[in-house]
Amino acid sequence: MSLHEEVDALRRVPLFAKIEPSKLKLLAFTSEKLEYQRGQDLCKQGDAGDAMFIIMAGEADVIVNTPNGEHTVARLGKNSFVGEIAILCDVPRTATVRASSTATVLRISKELFFRLVGEFPQIAVEIMRELAHRLDDTTKALAKAKAA
Amino acid sequence: MSLHEEVDALRRVPLFAKIEPSKLKLLAFTSEKLEYQRGQDLCKQGDAGDAMFIIMAGEADVIVNTPNGEHTVARLGKNSFVGEIAILCDVPRTATVRASSTATVLRISKELFFRLVGEFPQIAVEIMRELAHRLDDTTKALAKAKAA
Repeated sequence: MSLHEEVDALRRVPLFAKIEPSKLKLLAFTSEKLEYQRGQDLCKQGDAGDAMFIIMAGEADVIVNTPNGEHTVARLGKNSFVGEIAILCDVPRTATVRASSTATVLRISKELFFRLVGEFPQIAVEIMRELAHRLDDTTKALAKAKAA
Repeated sequence: MSLHEEVDALRRVPLFAKIEPSKLKLLAFTSEKLEYQRGQDLCKQGDAGDAMFIIMAGEADVIVNTPNGEHTVARLGKNSFVGEIAILCDVPRTATVRASSTATVLRISKELFFRLVGEFPQIAVEIMRELAHRLDDTTKALAKAKAA
C-alpha cells in the first residue's frame, strides 16, 4: 500500500477523521500495520499491555478467561479500538483479543498514544466518548445481572 | 474565598495539578462553585446532563433507581469527578448524585469541559484514565455477578 493509500485508510477511521492529512502521514510512519489470520491473538489476557489496536479491516473477538473456560464478551468490527485500558491504567491485559477473520490492525504503541492524545484533543474526546459509552453499557448490564 | 485561594484549591485537585496557575484563574472565573447540604441532589437520574461535577470538599453518593427502590452504588470523596457520562454521550443522567455531607462542588458546564479538554490534554488523559479504571472495575464486577 502506498503512503497516500495508507493516509487515506487512516482518514476513514472516525478516530482520525478530523486530523490533517499531513499529520496522518506521521501516524502512518510511526504506527505498525499488522495482518492477522483467523484465530491469531492480537493480545492475551494477563500480558503486559504496551499498545492499543485499531481494527482497519476484518473482525476480532474480545475473550475473557473464566474458571469455566473462555467466554466471548464482544465482537469488534472495522474502526473499533481496543487495548486502551492496559495502557491507560498500567494493568495487565484484561482480555484476550483474537482475530475472528483475516484482519488488518493498526498497532499504536503506548508512547505514540500519549503523543497523539497530547497533540490532537479530538482523539482524546473520541476515546473518552467511547469509554463513557462502554462504561454506561457495562453498568447497565451489571444492574441487570444483579437484579436477576 | 479570594481568587488566590480559589486557584490554590483548584491546584490541589489532581485533575488540574499540571495546569499553570494563570490558566486556573480562568477556570475559577468560568466554573461555578456550589454548596450542598446533606441530602441535596447534585443531579437526578433521568435528567438531561449539561455539566460535570468535581467534589472539592465533603462527600456524595451515586444512587441508581431500580424497580426495588434506590440503590447506592458508590460514595465519592474529595477530588472525585462525576457526571461526565451524560455530557460525553449525550444521554440522560444515568444516576442520581446526592450529597452525603455538606459538600463544596465545582460545576463545569459541557461547553467549559470541552474547552478544557481541548486546551489541556493532561485533563483528557486523567479523565480517560479514570474512565478506564471504572470500566475495568465494572467489567470485573459484571463477570463476577454472571458467574454467581
